Formats: sequence, C-alpha cells, structure tokens
Amino acid sequence: MKKKSIGNVPRAVVLLSGGLDSAVSLYLAKNRDFDCRCLIFDYNQRHKREIDSAISIASVVKSPYQILRIKLPWKGSSLLDRKTNIIQRVGKKHIYFRGIPNTYVPARNIIFLSFAISFAETINATAIFIGAHTHDYSDYPDCRRAFFQEVNKMIKVGTKSGVEGRGIKIMTPLISLSKSEIIKLGVKLGVPFELTWSCYRGGKKPCGECDSCYFRAKGFAEAGVLDPLGNKQD
Amino acid sequence: MKKKSIGNVPRAVVLLSGGLDSAVSLYLAKNRDFDCRCLIFDYNQRHKREIDSAISIASVVKSPYQILRIKLPWKGSSLLDRKTNIIQRVGKKHIYFRGIPNTYVPARNIIFLSFAISFAETINATAIFIGAHTHDYSDYPDCRRAFFQEVNKMIKVGTKSGVEGRGIKIMTPLISLSKSEIIKLGVKLGVPFELTWSCYRGGKKPCGECDSCYFRAKGFAEAGVLDPLGNKQD
Repeated sequence: MKKKSIGNVPRAVVLLSGGLDSAVSLYLAKNRDFDCRCLIFDYNQRHKREIDSAISIASVVKSPYQILRIKLPWKGSSLLDRKTNIIQRVGKKHIYFRGIPNTYVPARNIIFLSFAISFAETINATAIFIGAHTHDYSDYPDCRRAFFQEVNKMIKVGTKSGVEGRGIKIMTPLISLSKSEIIKLGVKLGVPFELTWSCYRGGKKPCGECDSCYFRAKGFAEAGVLDPLGNKQD
Repeated sequence: MKKKSIGNVPRAVVLLSGGLDSAVSLYLAKNRDFDCRCLIFDYNQRHKREIDSAISIASVVKSPYQILRIKLPWKGSSLLDRKTNIIQRVGKKHIYFRGIPNTYVPARNIIFLSFAISFAETINATAIFIGAHTHDYSDYPDCRRAFFQEVNKMIKVGTKSGVEGRGIKIMTPLISLSKSEIIKLGVKLGVPFELTWSCYRGGKKPCGECDSCYFRAKGFAEAGVLDPLGNKQD
C-alpha cells in the first residue's frame, strides 16, 4: 500500500490534559487519520502530575507536542489556589450539591482554545480536538455543546482562516458520551489508561474521593473494566 | 459630595496596548465611572516599546495593571518573527493591496480576550474594554464588530458569570470611529498622546512608514491636531 503523502493528510491540534477523556480524543483523531499535534498546558494546576501523563500519551502515539506554560496572576479556583479546599459535589451515595463546582477555573477552556486556534492557524490545521463531555460534568459551562458551537461561530468571523474560508472546527467527539461509554471506546482504540491521570489532588496515588476520582471509578465500574490505576468504587 | 462606595462602582478590565486607541478606550471607561483594571500583554512583539507606554498610561490615571507574559512557541506573523518583513499595505498616495496584512497575529485578540474574561470573572468585573475599530484597519478579522458580537455570545453560554446571569460584556466604544474621530475624542478626554506608541517597528522614533504610522499620521492630520511624537504626513 502506498503511503499517503503528508500534504494530503488533514492536520489537527489536540488538547491533551493527561486525563482519560483527552487521551481517548487523541486516539480517535489518530484513528480518523489526522496528523495530530498535541498542546499540553501547564497552568500551575494542583494536579501537575497530569502533565507527565499527557507527555507519555503523546509519546506513545508519536505525536509531536508543545507544552504551554501559562501563569495566571489571579486564582478564582480551588484547582489553582492550594489554600482553598476542593469542595466535593458527589459522594458514595448521593450528590451533595448541584451547580458549578469550585474546581471551575475562570474561562479555562476559552484560554486553552484560544491558543489552540492560534496554533491551528499557524500550522494550517483544520480541526481542534477537545475531550469535553457533558454527561457527568454538565455543570462546567465551558464543557457544554452550546459553548463549542459559539466558539466555532467566533472562529468563522474572527480569524484569518475563518474569513478566508479554510476554517478550523472545534471537534468534540465525546460531548454526548458518558464516562463509561468513553472508557469502552478507549478500550476499543487501545488507549493506555495506565498512563492517564484524573485525580484533582495530584498525589502519588488517586485520592479516590474527589469528584474526578468518583466519576472515573464509576465509569470503569459501569464499563465493566478494571482501572489500571487501581482507583475503584467502594 | 459623598464619595461613592467602591462596592457600587462597576468594575472593568481594560486591554491596554500602549497604542492610542486603547488609551482613549481607558479614558472613556474612566469617564463612565468604571473602576478600571488594566491588562497589558508582553507577547514578544517587535514593538515591545508599547508595553512601557501602556504602563505609563495606566500609571497616569492611577489604574492598577497586570502584565501578562505570553510566549507563543509559534510565529505566523511579521509582528512576532523578526526575520519576516512587515509588508506595507498603504503608501503615501495609494493602497498597495487589500486583505489581511502579515502583521496579523493568529488569534491574538481571542487570546487577549480569553485572559481578560478569566480576569473579569475572578474580580467580578462586568465589562471588558478593547480599543478595536474597523474604520481604517477593517482587514483584521479580530477587530470587527461581528467578532465581538460572537465573543459576547460565547461568554453568555460558556462562563460561570454568563450562565449565572451576572455577565461580562465586551465593550468596543471605538468600533465605528475613524482614527481622526478617536483622536478628537482623546483630546476631549485629555488623553496624553505623548505617552502612546503606535509604530510596529518599535525603534526609538516612529518609523513613519509602517501601516500603523501611516494611519496615525493621517488621523492626526485629519483631526487637525499635532502628534506630540512628531510623526506626521509628508
């Protein structure tokens, strides 16, 4: 079989956090034959460990990556401010409260996407993959379908690629999947879950208590798959 | 007269580049009684000199400012890449070409606004002032009215302040003004034009040749005002 000329392969920027969702989204983009370039953000998050995970995942699939260091001089989130407790919304048996959790980082996905759009324009990528989904975490406004639809409209009128008609599209292939569906998809695609990291607290082992650990454990349990990190529901 | 309680004063984030447009927009925001917090971006632009101008302008009106250092690992613009010539679009007697100039920085205003939105959310600001206008520079897609309208829609659905109904609005008070109208407005408001910087080349004196110098000189001439920087039309 003749190897495809690189000139014909569509290029994609993939936002890679190190969590399992973005890993699955990278594997999906590769599976759709995109030439993937990963962007990894070091924004002084508590769970810096996820950056190493992101690097490992990009390396496994041999996708070039860039690490962008962004130091926000303000906080406004328990993920940035180590003096603020990460308030749990969910527990073993019930949801403690609904609403936007205090792990929300003001405009985080807007910032990440703005860099991704700039990078995509520079390298003539036509797609930006982001592993956002709303099934479990519907309370983050910047993970909702309506948000990505607006970003796509903004790109059309506010960028050179947009107004010249080449265009860049934000791709959210996981947007309507549940965590367990994402995990099942990842299994099919051969995603190395042992390299991913979800815990907000960023210790040596997953804390097993934060919302992120909770939804991960629940997702693996519902998918009938064992989490290689050993994080499981009690 | 009783002094207004700071709690009742609406707060605004003002994007301050050091150019005359953003200076006028800051003075307008102050004039409308906003408690202004300036954001200044050091994005490794050629004309770094504008950063000192921005600091001086914020200091004159005693507005607190933050400098954000953003190092894009890609270029894609003659304003970032010192090896690329800044291609002139306009000359003394005619426009050489129309279209987006090579000083366009991919997604620059999207990046700037994303940080401004994050900052505004954190400090409960309700407005973001940007000095963009389309009269002379209509070829920058991220300076057009349609772009800012889309950003406002994105904020509504994609941020905590948006979905909780407090809201943050991008304010573009200069959007439909010509350079000379902006200069006349600046004169009324007492903007210290001697502190502003427009030249893309960022030398000791304005080069007098780049598009930015051209439009500044034309604007001052049409307004019948002398540019204190001595940049004038031949």
